[in-house]
Amino acid sequence: MIVDIHGHYTTAPEQLGLWRKAQLAGKRVDLRISDDEIRESLEKNQLRIQKERGTDVTFFSPRASAMEHHVGDAKVSADWTRLCNDLIHRCCSLYPDKFVAVAQLPQSPGAAPKDSIPELERCVKELGFIGCNLNPDPSGGHWKDPPLTDTWWYPLYEKLVELDVPAMVHVSSSCNPNFHATGAHYINADTTAFMQFITSDIFKDFPALRFVIPHGGGAVPYHWGRYRGLAQDMKRPPFKELVLQNVFFDTCVYHQAGIDLLLRVIPPENILFAAEVVGAVRGIDPETGNYYDDTRRYIDNSALAAADKKKIFEDNARRVYPRWKRK
Amino acid sequence: MIVDIHGHYTTAPEQLGLWRKAQLAGKRVDLRISDDEIRESLEKNQLRIQKERGTDVTFFSPRASAMEHHVGDAKVSADWTRLCNDLIHRCCSLYPDKFVAVAQLPQSPGAAPKDSIPELERCVKELGFIGCNLNPDPSGGHWKDPPLTDTWWYPLYEKLVELDVPAMVHVSSSCNPNFHATGAHYINADTTAFMQFITSDIFKDFPALRFVIPHGGGAVPYHWGRYRGLAQDMKRPPFKELVLQNVFFDTCVYHQAGIDLLLRVIPPENILFAAEVVGAVRGIDPETGNYYDDTRRYIDNSALAAADKKKIFEDNARRVYPRWKRK
Repeated sequence: MIVDIHGHYTTAPEQLGLWRKAQLAGKRVDLRISDDEIRESLEKNQLRIQKERGTDVTFFSPRASAMEHHVGDAKVSADWTRLCNDLIHRCCSLYPDKFVAVAQLPQSPGAAPKDSIPELERCVKELGFIGCNLNPDPSGGHWKDPPLTDTWWYPLYEKLVELDVPAMVHVSSSCNPNFHATGAHYINADTTAFMQFITSDIFKDFPALRFVIPHGGGAVPYHWGRYRGLAQDMKRPPFKELVLQNVFFDTCVYHQAGIDLLLRVIPPENILFAAEVVGAVRGIDPETGNYYDDTRRYIDNSALAAADKKKIFEDNARRVYPRWKRK
Repeated sequence: MIVDIHGHYTTAPEQLGLWRKAQLAGKRVDLRISDDEIRESLEKNQLRIQKERGTDVTFFSPRASAMEHHVGDAKVSADWTRLCNDLIHRCCSLYPDKFVAVAQLPQSPGAAPKDSIPELERCVKELGFIGCNLNPDPSGGHWKDPPLTDTWWYPLYEKLVELDVPAMVHVSSSCNPNFHATGAHYINADTTAFMQFITSDIFKDFPALRFVIPHGGGAVPYHWGRYRGLAQDMKRPPFKELVLQNVFFDTCVYHQAGIDLLLRVIPPENILFAAEVVGAVRGIDPETGNYYDDTRRYIDNSALAAADKKKIFEDNARRVYPRWKRK
């Protein structure tokens, strides 16, 4: 079985965007999307791609770039988040074998992370979600909230542990003109989070807390020697003890050489298969004739042992997202 | 010949730090460092390492983390910068075969980049400097100034082209608690700059402008497929045309797998040897028994053809830093 742990509903019917536009204009409209419209939006896109690429199930969350926690206030974020999560729930209910729901959180710049707990609980307990996306920078590229390792975040972590769901560290779009969203802000956030983790005792405080760092871990595997060396200079414990029980990387790296590096330096127990389709990169690589984001191909083509591939494609997902296993 | 294009004077005598402390306390003191003290600081460190590792010459600039453009105002930055550059000039004058000077710029948050021109000209024309470090975020982790591709920076670029010196894109320390300096801010800045470049026409405007992106290009080579794909989706020209005449990566990547990836995806014409010693990572890798930052070893051990290694070790440095060639 091949589990893609990182997919967003980037192909929602246009009514969703119109609802958001109305919301931001201070107008209240009903969201009317039929089941058939949802089916069409998925069958033409994510489901077609699952079939073409031979993957079985996708852990599915609202469009990351549209979370826009920096837009409007906490109430705006809460309403938008609830709507997006409900839509994900509908997708997953229509195709329960193909999509498993992962939640957006109603974060807002300066708002306490504990304020996200009610929506997280609703999604997990009432709707069967198995994880969530946690935005380390609700200010959208200005990085105004405390680091992920600050006790500011701890009430939310207590709940994540209690519910036994992991968080994917995933920013939204950037309102800082320095940072292109998918080309800089996403990758920077991944790198930043890892560095925060290795300089803190967060996993001593929460031994059962689990984070997935998407986009292949940002720059981290490429600079694995730098990170091991920085931690060593700071007299931190070896990574196996410090972070590798708690931090996982996905495989959203869009070329063979990148995936080969990831598989070479990161233990297979810490890698989870993902493609993030339909996502940031949609074209065909002229060097290979295949879609850049067809990450299954790179793993298939790698020299990794079959048992390790199985960990990446399936076993690790069951371990990191145990609520899926239980279903 | 082996040219390390990225070294900082991280081992300056303590009087330098005391001068800075006094400056920030509003006191005026003279900097008194003897030639012998400079010799000792270099011979025990950078010169010893050059000898041990068999490298020949280092392009040498003030300590990057101490540039601290975000501390104090433009006048504070200008005085500190001039002092640091003068000290680099002394180092290079004492060991003209071993060190070649690269300048810090007197940047300051919100200050126009053109204000850095007089110090750049002084260093290049009067003191024989061959390049400079350009901080893309003088605000120190808050990213408040315009992107490097904004016309805000253009007067400085005109001068770089006129003087025929490249700029290394190099941030300083971070005053944003989210970003560890050498573990997150440095790498993020590298990634950010590249993404800015590929989404702009900066090199149409300045065909002769040259940037070196340090630390192996941040996350860029690891995500080379992502960047090629993003550019392609945006209908940008191929990288060879778009950036590879103007943008170069150094080899400050501290493990074999990272260097192997860099050499696999980036054309050898665009890679310049560097180690950044004495720098961010000072320990010995227990997996190899060698220093993490002994990057020469990784290149020696790679499968790259000898002619390509020569490009990386020497030829590209002559091409990107032509003022060194002329000396």
